[in-house]
Amino acid sequence: MEERAKMMFGEILDDVRKYHPLIHNITNYVTVNDCANILLACGGSPIMSDDIDEVEEITSICGGLNINIGTLNQRTIPAMFASGKKANELGHPVVLDPVGAGASALRTDTAVQLMQQVKFSVIRGNSSEIKTLAMGSGSTKGVDANVNDVITEDNLEKAIGFAKAFAEKSHAIIAITGVIDIVADAEKAYCIYNGHPMMSRITGTGCQLSALTAAFITACPENILEAAAAAVCTMGVCGEMAYKRMGKVDGNATYRNYIIDAVCNIDSNTLEKMARFKIK
Amino acid sequence: MEERAKMMFGEILDDVRKYHPLIHNITNYVTVNDCANILLACGGSPIMSDDIDEVEEITSICGGLNINIGTLNQRTIPAMFASGKKANELGHPVVLDPVGAGASALRTDTAVQLMQQVKFSVIRGNSSEIKTLAMGSGSTKGVDANVNDVITEDNLEKAIGFAKAFAEKSHAIIAITGVIDIVADAEKAYCIYNGHPMMSRITGTGCQLSALTAAFITACPENILEAAAAAVCTMGVCGEMAYKRMGKVDGNATYRNYIIDAVCNIDSNTLEKMARFKIK
Amino acid sequence: MEERAKMMFGEILDDVRKYHPLIHNITNYVTVNDCANILLACGGSPIMSDDIDEVEEITSICGGLNINIGTLNQRTIPAMFASGKKANELGHPVVLDPVGAGASALRTDTAVQLMQQVKFSVIRGNSSEIKTLAMGSGSTKGVDANVNDVITEDNLEKAIGFAKAFAEKSHAIIAITGVIDIVADAEKAYCIYNGHPMMSRITGTGCQLSALTAAFITACPENILEAAAAAVCTMGVCGEMAYKRMGKVDGNATYRNYIIDAVCNIDSNTLEKMARFKIK
Repeated sequence: MEERAKMMFGEILDDVRKYHPLIHNITNYVTVNDCANILLACGGSPIMSDDIDEVEEITSICGGLNINIGTLNQRTIPAMFASGKKANELGHPVVLDPVGAGASALRTDTAVQLMQQVKFSVIRGNSSEIKTLAMGSGSTKGVDANVNDVITEDNLEKAIGFAKAFAEKSHAIIAITGVIDIVADAEKAYCIYNGHPMMSRITGTGCQLSALTAAFITACPENILEAAAAAVCTMGVCGEMAYKRMGKVDGNATYRNYIIDAVCNIDSNTLEKMARFKIK
Repeated sequence: MEERAKMMFGEILDDVRKYHPLIHNITNYVTVNDCANILLACGGSPIMSDDIDEVEEITSICGGLNINIGTLNQRTIPAMFASGKKANELGHPVVLDPVGAGASALRTDTAVQLMQQVKFSVIRGNSSEIKTLAMGSGSTKGVDANVNDVITEDNLEKAIGFAKAFAEKSHAIIAITGVIDIVADAEKAYCIYNGHPMMSRITGTGCQLSALTAAFITACPENILEAAAAAVCTMGVCGEMAYKRMGKVDGNATYRNYIIDAVCNIDSNTLEKMARFKIK
Repeated sequence: MEERAKMMFGEILDDVRKYHPLIHNITNYVTVNDCANILLACGGSPIMSDDIDEVEEITSICGGLNINIGTLNQRTIPAMFASGKKANELGHPVVLDPVGAGASALRTDTAVQLMQQVKFSVIRGNSSEIKTLAMGSGSTKGVDANVNDVITEDNLEKAIGFAKAFAEKSHAIIAITGVIDIVADAEKAYCIYNGHPMMSRITGTGCQLSALTAAFITACPENILEAAAAAVCTMGVCGEMAYKRMGKVDGNATYRNYIIDAVCNIDSNTLEKMARFKIK
């Protein structure tokens, strides 16, 4: 089953390169440039726009929408709702990245209300953020996961159960990323082992992955679970490829560039060979 | 005529390095860091400021102004008008980059109204954006040009005619960038063949070029057509120099850095040697 | 005395790596990504948030606060005051980076009022910005220091006197950075000779240093003068290490990455060996 999925991941990557999905991003100003460049790297095309007076129009000319609540504010929050609803109307795939949900009431409430008013195709966050959404409240160490929430082999079965249950409840694919990534719908979970610990030393690998996920699911809307898992796998494999390039004096700035470079260069064969996951 | 222009381009670059033009940028948050770094790379100095309560003062202490409407919003739009008018009052050169004009009514209308209320020295965009401004309406594939609007050898003469006519009507130098770049006033057009297709795989090469153009025309206000053409040529040449440095595993993130590095290192001799253009 | 301080700087760096200080940044959108990455590079953790509805909460979950007034605006200014006061209430260290104070009344007034209403642990800026704050008014060439304000061996004693007097008056550590950096409280000044002129060709080395300083003083709150001096020294040493890596075709974009890489890799031994300063 995993072998067949690997081939599918390769085909999905090829589709992204073929269809050049145009993605509307309402995202934070911290990592926005990297999100744009990773979308271009994978074969997609980005447009960033967050003003209430244009977001519905921008959503309409795009194929997919990526809503990221990092550096959310009173001006951009209404734009998130308006574009999310417009995307739903048009049947466009929508990704939610609940950056820092649990770190403030504003973030938690905004994410929870977005989930109530917008149908998301995929919700991608770290374990603390996703736990916060599932509970409707929570606590997050800034934008990183709490140590207690880290997914390991020991609590993997439980985490899979949680992801599937939350996917069922939210009618969205749930992507929890960390040391082990889980991408699940109500019935099936991909447990992905790709990636490198150094990725957590760069700001915005999560934001970049959400943008990438939006491109993948927009290119393959008929198969959103696999497309989301393929995006997570691609990011992890590229993190590994980039780490192999690192010289002794390279640090997180160079690593950031190498990951985006890897996304730019990876082909479906490499993705198929390097992908490591189990289906549960 | 081209040989003389090449020497002039070299002299203009030397002037930028000599006069260190200070440029006020009201620009989008996607590519703002690259705009600042390319201004420093060319020998200029950037300041970014977009609040209505300070933009006129900031414009006043600078030599030139660069208005870029990417991620425009209700807060920054009035600041664009205020600083543009102040720059006109002071006789400072002003660049307009109509990012995504045609992609939303807000962008189209803002750009059109800016053109009505502010005198721009140079308007730089892709062919779809410039066409939208010339028509007062249009459609743009996000922030990239529509395939139908691409300038090739086949439609070059027509595009030159369009650029000259729009330059005459708008009283601005028109810079249309793409596979072939056209920089024109009402009577004379530079058709520039520098650049590399890979540049479209990076976010913000257009934004960076607009910032660069502001620096070039501020350093050489007596010769704005040539200064704008020199900026476009420099960006293209640097795109070629950067591409030559690319290794097998390098991608768009590294390429982005290499282009700015090339702007940092290029000298007037190299620019003169590598510049490829016709004057029509 | 200098030898003992060098060892202390090394210990402070080790503490940053050990305690992973979480820093709340209200900062400009130009250099925000580099600020986040340098915080991760040094061993800290960043969170960026500037909305009035969440900044107090975000400040509360962090260990320290970094307020940078670059691209300040009507929306973010109240957030700066609110988070500064909350940090004071909680006894968290707070850094002020008065970017462009002197370039507009809005920047000067905001910085001056912040100093009246918030107790800052460290104020870090270039000589023109700090002079502006000390006078309550001033003029700055955009975001760079005026030539007249540059600190050299010739005016060093006077500059030290000024820094100590302003430190006494403001009850803050004053960090004036430039060719020679001065980090002073009312009685003691570190005159730091590390760094490289090329650092001024990158946007945001100052902003990055302020973020770094916030991490260092948050990790070592009992010794803020030395922690701030250690941060300034680390940035300078990393600027030197990065410059040594530069190849012939590298420019400011690559240099930017190399500096952050150096912060990622520097160890306390290297810092101790390469630190160059006098205590006065």
